[in-house]
Amino acid sequence: MKNILGANDEIAALNRQMFAQSGVVVMNLMGSPGSGKTTLLEKTLSRLAEKIKIAVIEGDLFTARDAERIERTGVDVIQINTAGGCHLDAPMIQNACASLNLAETQLLIVENVGNLVCPAEFDIGENFKATVLSITEGDDKPLKYPLIFKESAAVVLNKIDLLDFTNFNLQSARTDLSTLHPTIKIFETSCTRGTGLDAWTDWLLAKVVR
Amino acid sequence: MKNILGANDEIAALNRQMFAQSGVVVMNLMGSPGSGKTTLLEKTLSRLAEKIKIAVIEGDLFTARDAERIERTGVDVIQINTAGGCHLDAPMIQNACASLNLAETQLLIVENVGNLVCPAEFDIGENFKATVLSITEGDDKPLKYPLIFKESAAVVLNKIDLLDFTNFNLQSARTDLSTLHPTIKIFETSCTRGTGLDAWTDWLLAKVVR
Repeated sequence: MKNILGANDEIAALNRQMFAQSGVVVMNLMGSPGSGKTTLLEKTLSRLAEKIKIAVIEGDLFTARDAERIERTGVDVIQINTAGGCHLDAPMIQNACASLNLAETQLLIVENVGNLVCPAEFDIGENFKATVLSITEGDDKPLKYPLIFKESAAVVLNKIDLLDFTNFNLQSARTDLSTLHPTIKIFETSCTRGTGLDAWTDWLLAKVVR
Repeated sequence: MKNILGANDEIAALNRQMFAQSGVVVMNLMGSPGSGKTTLLEKTLSRLAEKIKIAVIEGDLFTARDAERIERTGVDVIQINTAGGCHLDAPMIQNACASLNLAETQLLIVENVGNLVCPAEFDIGENFKATVLSITEGDDKPLKYPLIFKESAAVVLNKIDLLDFTNFNLQSARTDLSTLHPTIKIFETSCTRGTGLDAWTDWLLAKVVR
């Protein structure tokens, strides 16, 4: 495991260098299966794609379903299939970037495999990570899966429109997140209702346009 | 990876032999973070614990939160912390079983780490697997994470009370599940409303009492 991570970190460093030279900002977007990563991404692209040049790398085990959804937004997208693998690693990203025009890209969003554990362990050379946690997953998840929230610059509490139908305690989740990671930025969004998306995309835009 | 899986399979075979000799039926319960595995387990125990002798092994990365919930039901429970690991393996189960009275147990339920990918790859010596998929995760999950559904004797479509607030297509999910795994048993449950729990626990009981 140590060797795998070591080899990964070397390629991640090369990726990071390549991204810096191309002037592209890279976000590694993570979260459980069904937390709403792809839908959040669709909404994000529809708000930002006219302002900045964005490209997307979609990670999935076998299908191209998510990449097909992103393709419909008109944004350049590359699909990586991990053939059952539980996370994206730096070599996969290095390989996918060969098919992207990085010099003309300002923001590269990598949607990782749906998994709250393994993706957090693998540096892909990104500038920052963000994690989507849906309200329906329960407010105990930050303490149960601490690494991913410690590693993330932001967490998106998604499906906030379902809050009243769950026993999710927003205050408790916010407290746990801030305890794990005092500077973490917390957004509350509903992609079906459009709630909170402006705050999220403004934050993301400020990461690119300084 | 092949060596890791090979070594795991050897211990899994020993576990399976030990379970058969003790006359205990073992279910490996899997699903995404927040799919509702622990709540389903609480409801299952409250219905079955007076009929048969049950023990539980709880898998989690760091906390004992789920085991504490199970302990309140009065059922014997062992907590395994994987220290960040993304799945339970056969040696962990072998080790935990040393603290259980298997000879007096009829059904052992192992709640795996919340993850729709890695747990499906590791045989722990169970008799059968079951996967909890919550409605809020989306109907595309069976085709996106096929292995876990191919490996599972049953799938529990949980949080069915939230169906009307999502775009989850039940017919499409059922078709995909049956295509992946023609003999898979499909349950629809709501643990908050009590819907569908009888069908699920009757099926489980029939696995133990023949």
